[in-house]
Amino acid sequence: MVQEITLETIKEQIRNVPDFPRPGIQFKDITTVLKQPELFSFLVDTIADIYKNCNITKMVCIESRGFILGGAIAAKIGAGFVPIRKAGRLPADTFSVNYALEYGSDGIEMHRDALNNEDIILLHDDLLATGGTAIAAIDLLSKFSLKKIYLNFLCELDFLNGRRVLKNYEISSLIHFKT
Amino acid sequence: MVQEITLETIKEQIRNVPDFPRPGIQFKDITTVLKQPELFSFLVDTIADIYKNCNITKMVCIESRGFILGGAIAAKIGAGFVPIRKAGRLPADTFSVNYALEYGSDGIEMHRDALNNEDIILLHDDLLATGGTAIAAIDLLSKFSLKKIYLNFLCELDFLNGRRVLKNYEISSLIHFKT
Repeated sequence: MVQEITLETIKEQIRNVPDFPRPGIQFKDITTVLKQPELFSFLVDTIADIYKNCNITKMVCIESRGFILGGAIAAKIGAGFVPIRKAGRLPADTFSVNYALEYGSDGIEMHRDALNNEDIILLHDDLLATGGTAIAAIDLLSKFSLKKIYLNFLCELDFLNGRRVLKNYEISSLIHFKT
Repeated sequence: MVQEITLETIKEQIRNVPDFPRPGIQFKDITTVLKQPELFSFLVDTIADIYKNCNITKMVCIESRGFILGGAIAAKIGAGFVPIRKAGRLPADTFSVNYALEYGSDGIEMHRDALNNEDIILLHDDLLATGGTAIAAIDLLSKFSLKKIYLNFLCELDFLNGRRVLKNYEISSLIHFKT
């Protein structure tokens, strides 16, 4: 008997790696899911389905795990792909934002010519933790005049309450970790 | 009149950034193409079409620009997605390889449980330059017992002759730069 694919069965296959990248952090490793064709397709189709009537013009995706599903979703919904990258990696004129991470700090950038005022954005990353990266990404998006911004995450760590700092946005997360 | 999309019209829209990431390097910036929905889809469809009868089981993609089209192609051809990442970023047990870059040096890793001996691999990156990264990636793939490895690049810098060091492999590159 073939087991039906659900978000719950996918959640069970996400690998929990203790003490990575540093002691006390329980890392959610999605590579165990992405490598399975049926599970990978299921995730792409599920997220694409949520936004199929939203007229998304561009997927904005956060380096680098956000690129994986982000690219696939963009192709599926007929949107363009725009990367948010770590400071110094985009070659042309950029907007920059610095922000505090769960562990450390970082800077992220977008090309100044990446978006225009007709754009409806789906901002995607693999993980919503404290919301620090997402807020920084929204800060970058605020440099543009956009029609609308939707937020999507594959996984959300509910116990870190990142959604609290994102309460003005429509958010979907597929897989929730309560602890 | 709508201009027909071809690889030649896409090539014309790749931005040439002089002296990035260091003096003397002419960086090929594909973000100007990826952000355009029709061009992004055209690239995904074109690469997926090349491999549609090859029974690819897993796309192995090189961080981080290789993730963008790689994820989309994987979903399109029904393959799993496997990342090759910079050293220290994959959380579970890895194979590692160090290699010389066109500018500097780097280490890349794959999870040891990423592939199995039934796998037919499409290794994808956005750019073939000197071939250093590709050879390192193949070195990683050689740690596994695989059925077959295909190589795909979006762009190839023909004048750097990276294909010379990859002559034992079937390679497709969509866009060639002669100079």
